[in-house]
Amino acid sequence: MTSTTDVTAPGANLIAGEESRKGTSTFRATDPSTGQQIGPQFHEATADEVRRATRAAGEAHRELRTWSGARIAGMLREMAEQLRAAEDELVATASRETGLPQEPRLRGELARACGQFDMFADLVERGTHLDVVIDHADDTSSPPQPDLRRMRVGVGPVAVFGASNFPLAFSVPGGDTASALAAGCPVVIKGHPSHPATSQVAGAALVRAAAAAGAPAGTVSLVQGAGTEVGEALVLAAEIRSVGFTGSPGGGKALARLAATRPVPVPVHAEMGSLNPVLVTQRALERRGDLIAEELAGSLVLGVGQFCTSPGLVFVPEGVAGDAFVERLVEHLSAVEPAPLLNAGIRAGLAQRLAATGGVTGVTVRLDGTPTQDDGPVVCAPSLFETDLATYRTNDELREEHFGPASIVVRHAAGATADVVPLLGGHLTVTLQAEQDEAEALVALRADLVETAGRILFNGFPTGVAVTTAQNHTGPYPAASDPRFTSVGARAIDRFLRPVTFQSTPDALLPDELKESNPLGVPRTVDGALPA
Amino acid sequence: MTSTTDVTAPGANLIAGEESRKGTSTFRATDPSTGQQIGPQFHEATADEVRRATRAAGEAHRELRTWSGARIAGMLREMAEQLRAAEDELVATASRETGLPQEPRLRGELARACGQFDMFADLVERGTHLDVVIDHADDTSSPPQPDLRRMRVGVGPVAVFGASNFPLAFSVPGGDTASALAAGCPVVIKGHPSHPATSQVAGAALVRAAAAAGAPAGTVSLVQGAGTEVGEALVLAAEIRSVGFTGSPGGGKALARLAATRPVPVPVHAEMGSLNPVLVTQRALERRGDLIAEELAGSLVLGVGQFCTSPGLVFVPEGVAGDAFVERLVEHLSAVEPAPLLNAGIRAGLAQRLAATGGVTGVTVRLDGTPTQDDGPVVCAPSLFETDLATYRTNDELREEHFGPASIVVRHAAGATADVVPLLGGHLTVTLQAEQDEAEALVALRADLVETAGRILFNGFPTGVAVTTAQNHTGPYPAASDPRFTSVGARAIDRFLRPVTFQSTPDALLPDELKESNPLGVPRTVDGALPA
Repeated sequence: MTSTTDVTAPGANLIAGEESRKGTSTFRATDPSTGQQIGPQFHEATADEVRRATRAAGEAHRELRTWSGARIAGMLREMAEQLRAAEDELVATASRETGLPQEPRLRGELARACGQFDMFADLVERGTHLDVVIDHADDTSSPPQPDLRRMRVGVGPVAVFGASNFPLAFSVPGGDTASALAAGCPVVIKGHPSHPATSQVAGAALVRAAAAAGAPAGTVSLVQGAGTEVGEALVLAAEIRSVGFTGSPGGGKALARLAATRPVPVPVHAEMGSLNPVLVTQRALERRGDLIAEELAGSLVLGVGQFCTSPGLVFVPEGVAGDAFVERLVEHLSAVEPAPLLNAGIRAGLAQRLAATGGVTGVTVRLDGTPTQDDGPVVCAPSLFETDLATYRTNDELREEHFGPASIVVRHAAGATADVVPLLGGHLTVTLQAEQDEAEALVALRADLVETAGRILFNGFPTGVAVTTAQNHTGPYPAASDPRFTSVGARAIDRFLRPVTFQSTPDALLPDELKESNPLGVPRTVDGALPA
Repeated sequence: MTSTTDVTAPGANLIAGEESRKGTSTFRATDPSTGQQIGPQFHEATADEVRRATRAAGEAHRELRTWSGARIAGMLREMAEQLRAAEDELVATASRETGLPQEPRLRGELARACGQFDMFADLVERGTHLDVVIDHADDTSSPPQPDLRRMRVGVGPVAVFGASNFPLAFSVPGGDTASALAAGCPVVIKGHPSHPATSQVAGAALVRAAAAAGAPAGTVSLVQGAGTEVGEALVLAAEIRSVGFTGSPGGGKALARLAATRPVPVPVHAEMGSLNPVLVTQRALERRGDLIAEELAGSLVLGVGQFCTSPGLVFVPEGVAGDAFVERLVEHLSAVEPAPLLNAGIRAGLAQRLAATGGVTGVTVRLDGTPTQDDGPVVCAPSLFETDLATYRTNDELREEHFGPASIVVRHAAGATADVVPLLGGHLTVTLQAEQDEAEALVALRADLVETAGRILFNGFPTGVAVTTAQNHTGPYPAASDPRFTSVGARAIDRFLRPVTFQSTPDALLPDELKESNPLGVPRTVDGALPA
């Protein structure tokens, strides 16, 4: 631990490599464990600062698009190094601003963030993401086919919106930033106002790394703001070509509507959370009910329930085993120490949602962890509701995410799991808690499970999203704005790449990736064959 | 040639396999060569017919999603067969409704359409499109990684809007239909009102093929309508998950705006045409000016200029060689026989656009082929404008597509090609007419060319879009609504697939494509390796 956790200089935006404080409106962070304001004043970015950041990003794009994958990889690895070098300051600052524990949570989160930069470095160094396809000329086909060579290039500057709940791995140094930069796209990041100092420390590490790698000044900018104006100006900036967002459905939908009004509309990749239904079979209840209840409680209160993969909806068969399961779940959750929520907005949203759900006829409040609305320190205990399938079916309130440590248990007739799945709607994940020896019987549900989520888990719990190539962190609306693109794992880069094809072009004019001799050795699909 | 080209029965919608004529508003096709109405009355689809079609598509999706790639492939091949079996009727009907010649144009277009069904059959039979990625569990990583297996599945029912200018290959039996069905997605096709009988004959062939392959009735439906109501109802239907459109910028943008208002927004893949700039270097002019002028004229009048890849903007250096080139272009275009435009809407749009461009100060009308606005037979000759770079730079009219046989020659200082490219905006294609021995000197332009188009041609002309894997028929806005997705070639299927990942799932519950033993033999990326 270092002693640099108190940022005493005024907070700053980072515009094209320079600290900037032009705005007259300011805001400060709040210590969630005390409710007191902490740290320096942060100046909201002005319209001119946003413009400077996006213009610099446009200029940076003109240079980065000429960089090889190896050079981009070098910059990404330098970013991981600079983040690691700032580890103690980042973790301590993030803990103060979020109330999340340094150990193991925030230190683990930083490791995840750094790992993402390293993973994308490996990816772009190999060139897999370029998706190179070469179809040689074919004069024998009718009509004759010209030589066509396709690769992918970065779409251009990306606006990234940091999330409040992962101040490192889904915020300034998160997966959106890493994947956009890996695609060769400069980023202008809107820091989340819940952790402005964390954003600044992380942003400064990225800026240092970009400079060390010889990247243009506009490669990484950070704009701060407590209201919506800064983000709106960013999404409307002419240079922006795509938007990455992790946060609430309200925020994601508003940004998508705004982006659609641009003279040149751009995609908003919004990951908007979900209820992540868990379905527990009768057999699993009978064999492992106590263990599942214990593990489910642990999953539900991870990060004080403020995970987009938090299991907010649990389907449990009626009957003795199900009753016992619910009682065990109540017991485990009752024993959980209250912990601070991330910010006042989440507290207010959760309180409102809990009140609405608790007021639905047919819903029983099993545990009421409603956070208080005072200005003082706020800690939140878990909430649990219980209801029946008919009530769930007819009340839209029960389909809304309760962001925080809250879950709804829906009891249904034993054996009726097949009736439940088509009612679920769109989620990031859906989990089956079932026994291996009933896997075959569950095949009939599979197609409906696929329709409802981007990731289907058999046992395990949805919290915990491994960063691998096969990962898929997206889902049918409203879990995400576009279920074709993941925001976690290697394929997150796909959001920020577009194909371009060269026809009948001489080798001397082709990018190296497409030259006949393949001087960079990138994987390529040639004449319909699989990559060599 | 058969004698079945006169459809005498009333025209029909094809709703879930059945002819349906519930609407009270009717419309007829027009013979573009005479301006006279021809063929039967077509009943515009009612809101209820659209609803029946989309509901049946939703039901069909529930069955098609369980089909193997091999079974889908069988259906696609049957569709190609049924289209070939209807060849004479299709080609004759299309020729009557569009004024396009049967030989070689429409017969070639049908071959292209059938080839697309066959290509997608090959693709889904191999399983390449599934993009299977398997990451085995790794207990040694920190945190431990679970077993994750990812594949792609169809997004669900797709609305397809037929284009007027390719009544076969970009209409009812076009690439959108073939790629959506290949992805396992049922289609509800809005036929273009310019060729309703062609749409019906093609739709009936697809319906017969689907039935022969044992596909559910809702797999293919066709709704007809002369106004915008039918298409609007279709885009707003709850079951629709994606939209494919080829047509005017006005139409594409309106559909995108509408789709964004849905409770569940869906992507609109609109390919909206472009000006397809051609840049001719001084050296190319000097060595091949006459030949380039002749071939450019030929490309410009293909399909009476009604191609989305028609070269509508040509940049030519000032000077003697450039002057001679333009004179040769005028000569070749003057010799072109006037030919009928596809429909009254295109005629009116072209007349308006030609008048606007001709009225710009600094623009010289070199050839005026303005079509008349009478009700009688209308034929259209080529139009050619000439202007300078300063005028092009300051007049937005010159950046608009002139859909028809019209092009604008922009003269610029010799050697100033590098100044031209950043002014171009978004197009489907950009073409360099240059010499092999100046390829290296042109490398400096490459990054800007990539920014302006989805396909970059060296020599050749942009008309002619080969159907291969490396093809890319899309481009930066406003050429297409999303430059990340092509609407031509094997990768057109990407629009209609989304990934889904199974975590820690027993083999018995996994789809065959993801089972450990790979019983279907699909290509897979395992633990980061390239496909075997």
